[in-house]
Amino acid sequence: MNTVEELGEHALIERIHARVPSRSVDILVGIGDDAAVLEPKRGTLTVVTTDGLEDGIHFDRNFCTPADIGHRALAVNLSDLAAMGATPHYILLSLALPPTTLVSDIDQMVDTLVSLATQHHVHLVGGNITASAQASSLHLDITAIGSVKRRSVLTRDAARAGDILYLSGDIGGAVAGLASLQQRSDVPNYSDKTNASQINMDRCHQQYRRPDPRVRLGMALGRNRAARACIDLSDGLADALQQVTIASHVGARVNADALPLHPQMVQWFQSVGVDPLTEALMGGDDYELLFTAPPSFRGRLSHVAKQVGNIAITPIGVITKEQTVVLHRNGTDVPMPSGFEHFSKPKTPR
Amino acid sequence: MNTVEELGEHALIERIHARVPSRSVDILVGIGDDAAVLEPKRGTLTVVTTDGLEDGIHFDRNFCTPADIGHRALAVNLSDLAAMGATPHYILLSLALPPTTLVSDIDQMVDTLVSLATQHHVHLVGGNITASAQASSLHLDITAIGSVKRRSVLTRDAARAGDILYLSGDIGGAVAGLASLQQRSDVPNYSDKTNASQINMDRCHQQYRRPDPRVRLGMALGRNRAARACIDLSDGLADALQQVTIASHVGARVNADALPLHPQMVQWFQSVGVDPLTEALMGGDDYELLFTAPPSFRGRLSHVAKQVGNIAITPIGVITKEQTVVLHRNGTDVPMPSGFEHFSKPKTPR
Repeated sequence: MNTVEELGEHALIERIHARVPSRSVDILVGIGDDAAVLEPKRGTLTVVTTDGLEDGIHFDRNFCTPADIGHRALAVNLSDLAAMGATPHYILLSLALPPTTLVSDIDQMVDTLVSLATQHHVHLVGGNITASAQASSLHLDITAIGSVKRRSVLTRDAARAGDILYLSGDIGGAVAGLASLQQRSDVPNYSDKTNASQINMDRCHQQYRRPDPRVRLGMALGRNRAARACIDLSDGLADALQQVTIASHVGARVNADALPLHPQMVQWFQSVGVDPLTEALMGGDDYELLFTAPPSFRGRLSHVAKQVGNIAITPIGVITKEQTVVLHRNGTDVPMPSGFEHFSKPKTPR
Repeated sequence: MNTVEELGEHALIERIHARVPSRSVDILVGIGDDAAVLEPKRGTLTVVTTDGLEDGIHFDRNFCTPADIGHRALAVNLSDLAAMGATPHYILLSLALPPTTLVSDIDQMVDTLVSLATQHHVHLVGGNITASAQASSLHLDITAIGSVKRRSVLTRDAARAGDILYLSGDIGGAVAGLASLQQRSDVPNYSDKTNASQINMDRCHQQYRRPDPRVRLGMALGRNRAARACIDLSDGLADALQQVTIASHVGARVNADALPLHPQMVQWFQSVGVDPLTEALMGGDDYELLFTAPPSFRGRLSHVAKQVGNIAITPIGVITKEQTVVLHRNGTDVPMPSGFEHFSKPKTPR
């Protein structure tokens, strides 16, 4: 039973089911029926999101193992729930697989997915498996379901002029990780030929392959009412700023010197002659949270910072009344470069 | 703006958003944020399912218009909720699109999807759009969310020996529709050459392209507690019987003469020299409901039949203690052929 074609659909579902921990009491019907039946948490709202990963677009099989893919597929969805201030509970997994997919690859993918889920007390309750056309590639769609109290919902349209812009963690690690992996595979005898090869990129590779969604931070921001608007950085900081300011009918002024840039990322892009700041602003896959809060929330924010432990929370600018997004760099204001959009041609040279 | 690549992701989301009716009061956050925020119906359980359609596997662009695809993608999910006895409320739409996809195709797909959704009071509350690799094909994943009262949940594991097996509508229409569309395109001068071309297959084509999910029937069966086990026929009657009997640790004996076969399907398969009964048992895409109920539920069932109007409900056999599925045909019991499985080679000659 090496390929999913040899194993067959029903046996594959059974195999995945066997890798999932036994279910909790709020799951009345789990994997194996037409749909899952769940008991909503009392007094809460339901939060749902879906996000897909497509082979060759969201991951490169040359650099990402099946285990990486399983982790990322869930991480991007947990990140979306976190950006709403929600607590994640359940996921559905929809797989479109070329018939020649190795069963061992699916095992690894499911194992890391379940491992990340378990870490956040999240249960896989159902899904769907289908063959994809022979020429097609692996496609994963995950739907994540969470809950939030009405007063804790964080939306992207709630920013107000005068709010401070905050960013969790640091940025650019994932894009540098991917770029270095790509260059390593493109340049023959890479390690002899480039200065970049001297930089230890392990943390950047990890950030690209196994992003750590800010689940606890999002929940804490919502529960403590410590943020107004919130969004995750799936498509980069420049894109996130654009989304928040458009939705909130405001602008933003970001201080370049304040941006928490990933240290290896800075080194690496400098060594290949590319501006690290631009890369960090435009590069996606960081899965940090960008949020806004008025200065009066400072007390609540330090309470949140204590709760979530070792995640840096950095003020990076302010929300402005004027509806433009500007970057304050080297003493002058320049327009913010625009972010990543699917279907668009890549905007940065690799 | 002919292709999605030219239009871009954000504009495409806006375009889809504009085609969706304004949202209802229970949707606190709809399309456009990291996730949707929904208010659960009081005293109900949440029911969630996901199902995907892959170009070349679940639909053939030669026979299915984008409008057909949009309808079917939603229908298969509503059918899954119906099989649980649930009332559908919300959907998420996840699209993976080759960059050259025509924007007009997406418009048509969304319009029929929204039209079917509106017919069942269902709201599109979010989703995801991504580019697929150039060589890949169109992929749609829908997640459907509904509600059900605890006492109304219909599962596939609740059948008991002595229950009567019931089937809604008739079967085989979709598989005959697809087969005739395929033959029409495969056989040069089709209409001159085959007797099959004399048969009006419009209803079968419609059943394949635009299946009508049994939403009201599923809800009525649940609310009236008129069924024990229930499942939809997405992968055919033979497969559905297998699923129900395995999950319920029972068997079934189906009376071939009692099966409600689609009349044009019978004519058409006979004209091409294929056994219509086998095709109808093994063919998928019918989206009828198969359910079981003890004889004592007959009163409740006729109440349900009145509520749902013109859907035929036919007793087709009984649930048995012995854990095999047999077909009573021409005076003898024969084993039921097995149903469709993804990744398996087609079991019927076309």
